[in-house]
This record gives sequence, structure tokens and C-alpha cells, in this order.
Amino acid sequence: MSELRRDPISGRWNIIDTTQPVGPEGFEVEPPMQSAGKCPFCYGNEAMTPREIYAVRPQGGPPTGPGWNLRVVPNKFPALQIEGDLGRRGLGVFDLCNGVGAHEVIIETPEHDRQFADLSVPQVAEVIRAYIARSLDLRGDRRLRYTLLFKNYGLSAGATLEHAHSQLIALPIVPKRVQEELQGAGRYFDFRERCSYCDVLHQELQEDERVVCENRSFVAYCPYVSSFPFETWILPREHRGDFAKITPDTVTDFARILKETLGRLRTVLGNPPYNFVIHTAPIEPREREEYHWHVELIPKLTKIAGFEWGTGFYINPTPPELAAKHLREAAWVPAAV
Amino acid sequence: MSELRRDPISGRWNIIDTTQPVGPEGFEVEPPMQSAGKCPFCYGNEAMTPREIYAVRPQGGPPTGPGWNLRVVPNKFPALQIEGDLGRRGLGVFDLCNGVGAHEVIIETPEHDRQFADLSVPQVAEVIRAYIARSLDLRGDRRLRYTLLFKNYGLSAGATLEHAHSQLIALPIVPKRVQEELQGAGRYFDFRERCSYCDVLHQELQEDERVVCENRSFVAYCPYVSSFPFETWILPREHRGDFAKITPDTVTDFARILKETLGRLRTVLGNPPYNFVIHTAPIEPREREEYHWHVELIPKLTKIAGFEWGTGFYINPTPPELAAKHLREAAWVPAAV
Repeated sequence: MSELRRDPISGRWNIIDTTQPVGPEGFEVEPPMQSAGKCPFCYGNEAMTPREIYAVRPQGGPPTGPGWNLRVVPNKFPALQIEGDLGRRGLGVFDLCNGVGAHEVIIETPEHDRQFADLSVPQVAEVIRAYIARSLDLRGDRRLRYTLLFKNYGLSAGATLEHAHSQLIALPIVPKRVQEELQGAGRYFDFRERCSYCDVLHQELQEDERVVCENRSFVAYCPYVSSFPFETWILPREHRGDFAKITPDTVTDFARILKETLGRLRTVLGNPPYNFVIHTAPIEPREREEYHWHVELIPKLTKIAGFEWGTGFYINPTPPELAAKHLREAAWVPAAV
Repeated sequence: MSELRRDPISGRWNIIDTTQPVGPEGFEVEPPMQSAGKCPFCYGNEAMTPREIYAVRPQGGPPTGPGWNLRVVPNKFPALQIEGDLGRRGLGVFDLCNGVGAHEVIIETPEHDRQFADLSVPQVAEVIRAYIARSLDLRGDRRLRYTLLFKNYGLSAGATLEHAHSQLIALPIVPKRVQEELQGAGRYFDFRERCSYCDVLHQELQEDERVVCENRSFVAYCPYVSSFPFETWILPREHRGDFAKITPDTVTDFARILKETLGRLRTVLGNPPYNFVIHTAPIEPREREEYHWHVELIPKLTKIAGFEWGTGFYINPTPPELAAKHLREAAWVPAAV
């Protein structure tokens, strides 16, 4: 018989198939993307992107030229635009406002054929520092309430270009999903006077059934209430709501575990499409003591169907215990750096 | 500039691209499924399914033989099982219970190559009567709290067989998504002393910009806060929370608008994969005066990516006004019956 498991933070129940669990061999993984035409993210094509906002250029040089390790540019087809008033207003029973916000692309490497998981730890750390720098910079804009950092890798995970990149979207509202997390974590905090994420982490480490890998500052594990096969979360050991305030030391540890987790997923699943999202506290003056920033990483292996749309929860054919076992036991050689 | 639009019931904000809207020609539609091997839903293969629960057999005959127009059978690979105790219990910070529930398949026609949208109005009405009969029957089981009826059509909408069928899953809990709807509708009801769905319907009919088609008992429209391109909802004009309590007259009108809406979607988009879900009130003695049952129909045209996972809301490249215009103006010949 399957199990229904309930997440203490979101209140979401998922159905986990514990009787006929599906291992890594049970999923068909789509082949890597190959987009045609000149790549706007490659060396020499800098003029194809909108004007550079941030870059790592060890030897200096103009923002339109090569010689960079990393660039941040506005998205050429932005979901939101930075200019203009919010103009929040009603329309009968509905509400609307203008699509004000930021939509940026972090080009993670000049090398077209290099995946994020193949970057060195210092290179990944460079990407994380770009995330932090852009997050902090956008806080100066009083219209913005939330900064979302995420990566789509592969066609069915929503990527449109294969050259390694991640995205930042800053929003004038706190997203529904984040509000739910804050409310859930808040209820737990009120009841137990402890952080729910810290408690989950403590239990995961104690049970040691779903942990994938860990280092001084982070733990990667497949959550007890995983919605998807091989879903993996990365939690900092240190209780902190705001991702952008992590210390330089933690940045390197974060780079290390992110690279290791992606590497293990690739070894076990053979280069699947995936999304990762950094869940962090909203932009606001007060510190959210009930919140704990983290990464949710979802390999794209299953389809979303009517059941999921109707219920808001998921049927997961791979128990997280099995997923973690495969990921933990995968051959993985840590980088020299 | 794009628009951020807020749904008054769920509180969800979606980003609607009103500047460079994408019409039907902008989407690539996957080819129809073709599964290999003997089809368990065809005439003569009745023994390939678990034992029949319900059927329409105009000439009578045994449950294992042909001569039927429609059959309901347990899912051969059920997400939940009807036998056993719920056994709800804690596991440290988590909760779990056994996967108790029902998972049934409604085989809508014996004809393998006939799509749901091609069935006659009386045949679609037969399917709806099967939905109602199964919903009412399962209410006798005190462990169950919710009955979800839905259809996955096409590979990327999660279907595994192409022979026309829909599914029923009865759950021992009220799903998160339904709870959110009930809470949202309840807040609105408390505040305005009216049904939020009735108010939305009233406004949609008045503005007449997003209505696709209508008949005596139902209105199909593309919601103002559509999450997906060409998303279409079907709302009964009559305020009622419980789908299973609709009158025989209404069943025919429902069949008619469901067929018309699917036909229009196919004309405009060229046979896209889709999901539809019947949203109805939970199984409970009290009548939910704040709730209004309805159908949400989502053609599968876009990918879910990191932004959607992180925020719980959606970037929709096709404004519902444009989608509704295309659907409304599509050549559509009503069935003779």
C-alpha cells in the first residue's frame, strides 16, 4: 500500500508509492538541448544581449567586449520591466497592477558547452556571489518585495537556451508559495517556539535515511514529503532567513554542495532536465526568525496531470529513501579545490 | 508592459503578457499518442481490466463481455487502495497515513479511435452520469473526504493510454488546493455575503470579453487571471457546491458545453493535450454555501519552470481576452442532438 505523507510546513500531503517504487532506470530522460543559431551568451556576442548590469572581468575591459567569466544582463524578453509605476488598482472583483519588476539573466560561464555542474567550485562560488550582489542591489528599489533566483536546465524544465545560465526575477508582491511557507513556518514557530526547518533538518540527520551529502555548512537530502522523484533540498545548518546575508565562507560551502548534488543527480539519472529555486525571505526590514532559506532542486522526470492540478499535491513513484540511497551511493569524486 | 492580475478567490497573482501576446500559432502541439500493444479498454479485452464496478450495457450481458457503451473499472496501477485502515500517525515532525482511497477509470467509449470531444452529446451525458453515480456511491465510505474527477488527454498531459478515459480518485483528506479555494471563497463570502464565483461569473458576462460560449445552464470563459494560455473554465449559472447533485436537465447542458468547449479548443489549437478537473465541494454533511462547483480545463502548451515552482504563480503569454476571442470565433457546428 502507498503512503500519504504530510509536510509540517506547507500542509501538503503527497502520495508516495512504497510498494512498487520506481528507481532511476524507470525514467526516460530527454536528450540535451541543442538550440540553433548564434548564441547570445557566448564570447564575442556580447552586443546581442541588453546592456550588462554586473560582470566578473579579471583583466577589466569594456562591458561590450569579451574577457569575462560571468555576466548579468537584463532578460531580452522580460516577464517584468523595471520602469514605471506599480499602479495597483481594482477592476470589479479583480485586482491588477503593472508588470513592474526586474528580470535578469546570470550567464554563468563564457564556455558554450560547459554545464553548471561542470564548473569548478570557485566558478560556482562566483555565480553565487553574483546572485547575492544582484539581490542586495535590487533592495534599494522600494517597489520590490521579493527576489527569486532560479535555474531552468533542459527543454522540459523550461529552458530556451542551452548555454549555462540562471535567472533572477524581482517582484512587487510576495509570491503565494512564499507566503504559504512563511505562514506554515510561522504557525509552527508559534506552537513550538522553534524553526520548523531546523527541526526537519535535525530529524533528517538523526534518521539518516534521506541524507544525500553534507559539508560543514550544508546538508542535501531528499525530503520525507518529496513531491517528485529525486527531489533534493539543500539546507544551511545555520538558521537564517535571508540567503543574501550568508558569509563568504558559507558561499564556498554552498558552491561545493550545489556542485556535488548536481553531480550526483547526473551520475544517477544521466543528465536530466532540472529546476532549482532559492527560497529566501521577502524583502522587508524585519528579520523573519521563523524562516530558513534553502534550495529546492527538482529533476524533471514526471508529468504534471489532472490529479496534481486538482489537488495541489503529487503522486511520487520514487520514495525519497530510495532516491537518497541511489544519490548517496553514486560514484562521486570531490573536486580538488 | 505586462500586467499582474490577482484572483480574488485563490489570491494568486499571474503575469499576463499584454504587450507581445502569443496567439494559437505560437505554440507547438505534440502529435497524438500511439501506445503499442493490445488496448485493455477495447471491446473483447474486458478481462485485461480489474473487475467492472459500473457499466452502461443497453442489451444487458455479463460484466466481462462486450456490448457496453461505457465501463468503470478500478485502476490497474492504483495510487490508492480501497482496503485497509487509515492508520493516521505521527513520525517526529511529520504525519503519515496509509494510502487508502479509490482510484477508478471511466472508459468513455468502446471505440479505440474516438476522442472524448467526438462523442455525441448523449454519450458525453452518459459519462457525466457515470461520474455522478460513482461519486454518490463512494460517499457511503466514511473514510473518504473528497472525490476528484479528472481527465488527462495526451502524453504531456500525463495520459498513459490513448483510448478515451477519465479518472476518479477518492481521498481520505481534503486536498490543499480545494482547501485554499474553500478558504478563499469563505473569506469573500464573509466579507461580501455573496458567492465569489457568482460574482466573477456576473462580471465575466457583463464585460463579455472572455466568454467563449454559453447555454441555458453553463458559461465557458477564459478566466481574467488565467494561469495558462487558453485555460478555460466552465461554470454552472446555478449556485451549487456539489457537482454530484446536479439535475438530469443540467447533465445534458453540461455535456453540451463540455463538448463544445473541447471542440473549439481543438479547432483553434489543433488537438492539444489537455487536463480537465471537476472542482467540487468536499464530502461532508453540511452544504457549502460559499462554494460553487466548476470545471477547469487546461490545454498543455507551456512548460512549468523554476519561476512557477518558486512562486506558485504563472507567466501567461496569451491574455485570456485574446484566447477567448479565438475560441469564440472558431468555426463550430453544434451537434444535431
